[in-house]
Amino acid sequence: MENFTFYSPTYFAFGKDQENNTGKYVRRFGGNKVLIHYGGGSVVRSGLLDRVKNSLKEEGVGFVELGGVKPNPRSGLVYEGIDLCRKEKVDFVLAVGGGSAIDSAKAIAAGAVYDGDFWDYYQGKVITKALPIGTILTISAAGSEGSPDSVITNENGMYKRGASGEALRPAFSILNPALTQTLPQFQIACGITDIMAHLFERYFTTTKEVEVTDRMIEALLLTMIKEAPRVIQDPADYQAQANIMWAGMMAHNNSCGVGRAQDWASHDIEHELSAIYDCAHGAGLAVVFPAWMTYNMKHDINRFAKLAVRVWGCQMDFEQPENTAKAGIAALKRFFISIGMPSNFSELGAKEADIEEMAKKACYGDGRKGTIGGFVKLNENDVANIYRLML
Amino acid sequence: MENFTFYSPTYFAFGKDQENNTGKYVRRFGGNKVLIHYGGGSVVRSGLLDRVKNSLKEEGVGFVELGGVKPNPRSGLVYEGIDLCRKEKVDFVLAVGGGSAIDSAKAIAAGAVYDGDFWDYYQGKVITKALPIGTILTISAAGSEGSPDSVITNENGMYKRGASGEALRPAFSILNPALTQTLPQFQIACGITDIMAHLFERYFTTTKEVEVTDRMIEALLLTMIKEAPRVIQDPADYQAQANIMWAGMMAHNNSCGVGRAQDWASHDIEHELSAIYDCAHGAGLAVVFPAWMTYNMKHDINRFAKLAVRVWGCQMDFEQPENTAKAGIAALKRFFISIGMPSNFSELGAKEADIEEMAKKACYGDGRKGTIGGFVKLNENDVANIYRLML
Repeated sequence: MENFTFYSPTYFAFGKDQENNTGKYVRRFGGNKVLIHYGGGSVVRSGLLDRVKNSLKEEGVGFVELGGVKPNPRSGLVYEGIDLCRKEKVDFVLAVGGGSAIDSAKAIAAGAVYDGDFWDYYQGKVITKALPIGTILTISAAGSEGSPDSVITNENGMYKRGASGEALRPAFSILNPALTQTLPQFQIACGITDIMAHLFERYFTTTKEVEVTDRMIEALLLTMIKEAPRVIQDPADYQAQANIMWAGMMAHNNSCGVGRAQDWASHDIEHELSAIYDCAHGAGLAVVFPAWMTYNMKHDINRFAKLAVRVWGCQMDFEQPENTAKAGIAALKRFFISIGMPSNFSELGAKEADIEEMAKKACYGDGRKGTIGGFVKLNENDVANIYRLML
Repeated sequence: MENFTFYSPTYFAFGKDQENNTGKYVRRFGGNKVLIHYGGGSVVRSGLLDRVKNSLKEEGVGFVELGGVKPNPRSGLVYEGIDLCRKEKVDFVLAVGGGSAIDSAKAIAAGAVYDGDFWDYYQGKVITKALPIGTILTISAAGSEGSPDSVITNENGMYKRGASGEALRPAFSILNPALTQTLPQFQIACGITDIMAHLFERYFTTTKEVEVTDRMIEALLLTMIKEAPRVIQDPADYQAQANIMWAGMMAHNNSCGVGRAQDWASHDIEHELSAIYDCAHGAGLAVVFPAWMTYNMKHDINRFAKLAVRVWGCQMDFEQPENTAKAGIAALKRFFISIGMPSNFSELGAKEADIEEMAKKACYGDGRKGTIGGFVKLNENDVANIYRLML
C-alpha cells in the first residue's frame, strides 16, 4: 500500500424527504444567497425544485436560478453561471440533479472566486478555493456528490476534461433514493454502469498488497450485481435504489481507492466518444470497459482472475487462469447487455472512421503527452486497437 | 434501509513518517497550544513523542503534556487533563497512542469547554462542543481515530460507559502502520479482535435490505482474516499492518454501519468484564462474541448462515441452515484461538460467582432500563446465560 491522505468532509443526509432540510443545511454550511443549478424539466415537473425553494425560503436563504445543464455539461453554461454568481453576490452553489448538474455547479463554484478563466483548472491548474457546494442527487451514477472531481466539455474543440481539488468536495449532499424511482430505465442502467466503471478504474492497479481496498471494491460490485436487475425491472424498488445510491457514493469518494495506483484510461477513452457523439457516458463505458479489459488482461492475469472469481462467481482455472479472466470479462459483457446497455460501436452511434482521430485526442489532446492510464500505459496505437475491439 | 446522516470530516494522513507532519496539521485545524496526551513509556522510548514535539516546535505550536493513560481509561486522569487545559489555555488536544489515549483525550476535549462534570456526557447528555482533537495512532484496534465515540471507566463504582457526538470526531488522524510493527503479539491480537467485534456489532441487525453495508462489513472481515495471521506471525510485516490499520478505521467510522440498526450488547457485556477484571477489551470480546452468537443465532438463522458462507467460506446447508450458522461460529472461535486469544472465563481471569452481579450492572447500571442490544433485546437473565456459555 502507498502513503495517502483521505479527506471526505461532506455531510451526507440520506433517505426519504431529506430535500426538505436543504435550507437548514445551506445555513449550516454558511450560505446566505444560493445559485440553484439544474438541468431539464424533470426537476421542475416533479415538484422537487419547488420543495427545495420552499426549504430555502423557510430558512430565509435567498436564491437565483440557472437551469439548462445538459448531459456532458458544457463550458458555455459554466461561464454564464460564474457571471450570475458575481452579479448576484451568490455565496453558495446548490446543484439539483445528477453528475452533470453537480459537475457544472462545481466548475461555477470554483470559477466564481477565480480571477482567470475557469478552464485553467481543467488544464491542470491546482484548485485552492471555491464557493461552498451543496447537492441534491437525482440519479445514482457519477459519484460527484461525494467526490472532489468535475468533468466539463469545452465547446471550443469539444474537449472533455476533468478537474479535481478538495475545494470541490460538496459541503453537504442530500441522497434521497425516492427521487430516482421515476427515472427511465436507460438512464438508470447508464448510472449503474458508471458506478461499476468507477470501481474497475480503481481495481486495476499495479500497487501490491491492497487487500482492504480490493475487498471493498468487490463488495460494492457485488452489491451492484444484486441490486441492478431489481431496479431495471422495477425502478420504483426503493430498497434496491437505496443500496445502489450509497454504493455509488462510496464508489467514488475514494474511500476504497486510497493507497493504490488507479487507471482511468477507460474514462479517457470514453470521454472522446461522448464528446463527439454525445452518447450517454455510462453507455460509452459499457462498450469501452470489456474492450479495455480484453486488451490489457495479459498484464496481470491473476488480478483479472481474482475479479472473475470473487465478483462474478467464476470457477478458478488453476491450470489456465486466463480462462477464468476471460470468463469474468464475458460475464461483465452479459451483465451490461442484460441491463440494456450497448455492446459495440454501432449501437453507440460511433464510427470506425473516427477511431484514429479519437485515439490521437485521447492521448495528446489538451496537454497530454502521448500515453494514458495507470495500470498499463496506453499509446495512441493501443487506444486505437481498443476502439477496434468495440466494432 | 433506514434514513441516516453520515459525517466523517476527519482528515486522515496514512503511511510511513506521517507523524512528522503533526505540527502542520495542528495548525491547519486551528491549534496554537496543544495538550499532548499519551499512555505509558513506549511512546517515549520509541522516540515517537520526540518526533511529535519536534514537529510541533517546527510550526511554533506550544504544548503541555499529560501521560499515564491506562487501558480502560479512567475518569481521574480526565479530570486532571481538563484542569490542565483550562490552566494552560490549551486549544487543541492531541492523543498519541491507541484507543485508550484517544478516548481519554476526547473526554478531556469535551470536558475542557463544558461548565459541568464531564461525566454527564457519559450518562447521555448530548455533546455539542469540544476542543478540536488530533490523533497519532499506535495500534489498530478501537477505531476511535475516526469515530465520534469515547469510552471511559468511572472510578467511582467502576462503571465503563460510552459517550458519542460529532464534536468528538478527530479533526485529523495520523495512521502510520510502521508504529504498530513493534507491538507485542497479544496486543495486536486484542486489536484485531476489537476491529472484528465492531464489524459484528453492525452486522447483526434487524434492518432488512442493507446489502451494501452487509457486503462492506464482510469485505473488512475477509481482510482481517487474510492479514491477521501474517501480523501475528511477524508484527514487522508492514503491508499486513497497513491493511489492518485502514480496515480498523473503516470498521468504526460508521461508513459501513449507516442506515441499519446495530447491536452493541456484546460490547456492553464485555465492558463489565474489563471493568472488574481489568482484562484487555479485545480479549474479553473474543470470549463474549461466540457466546453471544450461540445464544442469539435462533433469532435469524439466515443472517448467521450468510456470515458463515460469505466470510468463513462454509458450505451452505440448505436443508439445515443452522448447521451452517454453527459452523461459522465454530470457525470464529478457532480463529480467535489461532491468534492467541482466550476462549473462556478462566483464561480471562473471570469468576462464575460474579456473573449475576455483572449481568445486573450490564442491564441496569448507570441509568439503563433493564435490557441491552438491538438485534435481540437481552435482559438480566439472558446476559447471565450468555456469561455462563463462556465458562
